[in-house]
Amino acid sequence: MLKSVEVNVITSNENKFKELDSIAKKYNIKLKWINLPKFEVQSDSLEEIVRSSAVIAFNMIRSPLIVEDSGLFIEALNNFPGPYTNYVRRTLGLKGILKLMEGIQNRKAYFMTALCYVDEEVIRVFTGKVVGKISESIRGDKGFGFDPIFIPDGDERTFGEMNIEEKNKYSHRGKAFEEFIKFFLTYIS
Amino acid sequence: MLKSVEVNVITSNENKFKELDSIAKKYNIKLKWINLPKFEVQSDSLEEIVRSSAVIAFNMIRSPLIVEDSGLFIEALNNFPGPYTNYVRRTLGLKGILKLMEGIQNRKAYFMTALCYVDEEVIRVFTGKVVGKISESIRGDKGFGFDPIFIPDGDERTFGEMNIEEKNKYSHRGKAFEEFIKFFLTYIS
Repeated sequence: MLKSVEVNVITSNENKFKELDSIAKKYNIKLKWINLPKFEVQSDSLEEIVRSSAVIAFNMIRSPLIVEDSGLFIEALNNFPGPYTNYVRRTLGLKGILKLMEGIQNRKAYFMTALCYVDEEVIRVFTGKVVGKISESIRGDKGFGFDPIFIPDGDERTFGEMNIEEKNKYSHRGKAFEEFIKFFLTYIS
Repeated sequence: MLKSVEVNVITSNENKFKELDSIAKKYNIKLKWINLPKFEVQSDSLEEIVRSSAVIAFNMIRSPLIVEDSGLFIEALNNFPGPYTNYVRRTLGLKGILKLMEGIQNRKAYFMTALCYVDEEVIRVFTGKVVGKISESIRGDKGFGFDPIFIPDGDERTFGEMNIEEKNKYSHRGKAFEEFIKFFLTYIS
């Protein structure tokens, strides 16, 4: 059993930390930002990537921690770019994905987050998903990553056309983190 | 200094082992095949990937070893698919790359291999490259990976249209391995 409820979050992206922290505060869970890039293995599975990242990080810092990773999975492209979403954003960009999708009717896609919690006693992976489709064109300049070409089900706008509160209603990262919190509150009680 | 000249090769691809072994035999270097997938970190740099793979493998088997990784780097696509070549082959395939290259004049690309040797005393990375271009269509059914859409400079045929001896004349993997051998023969003498 844990003595403290402080949990370290390993990420070099301050916005991700802030997004999680704004949720954690509602539950009185204290997060601490560790500004480090996570060590990532090559794998088709986000769960496997965060699990190995988290174990490696735990072997260094030896206190409870979270690692998360997110990706865009496009059905007609065999789930490409999946775990390599950041790399593909930097190389092919939004236009590259739209080019690959030219003439393809099935535009189904989802964003997914996998989040791993580790401490001395447990290792658990939680996931969150938002299902939607790839837009026909780039729309909006808000958000980051592939937000301007992703339309969540139940909306007509891309994530790039939404402000942060609107986007958070759908957030895959938020969903994964809420799953963690459900577990964690029981675990520490 | 090494007592023996046996070097382990970590790969789950028997063809890669055979390709290296056929070269090693000419120099009287004994290779031993360890049939294991290598542990791969996510990185834009093949050198970094093989270096970390090799160190991790050495911590397990504790005897001299080699790990190699290869990728296709396309100039007009910011070097995509690079270190994620196998993943992109499985998801987008040959047609996906040709679609991304539609209407693009600059078709320059290269295949590169990075190969890391580790023992108790040294860790060294060697590279080999073959420069060429992406073809306009899929041609030939020999080889593997992206061979049917890659034309090496100095030839008109794709790697997919060449037999193994013809392809080996250009081989990036062979070049990297020859670099290793140059080092190794001096090292053990």
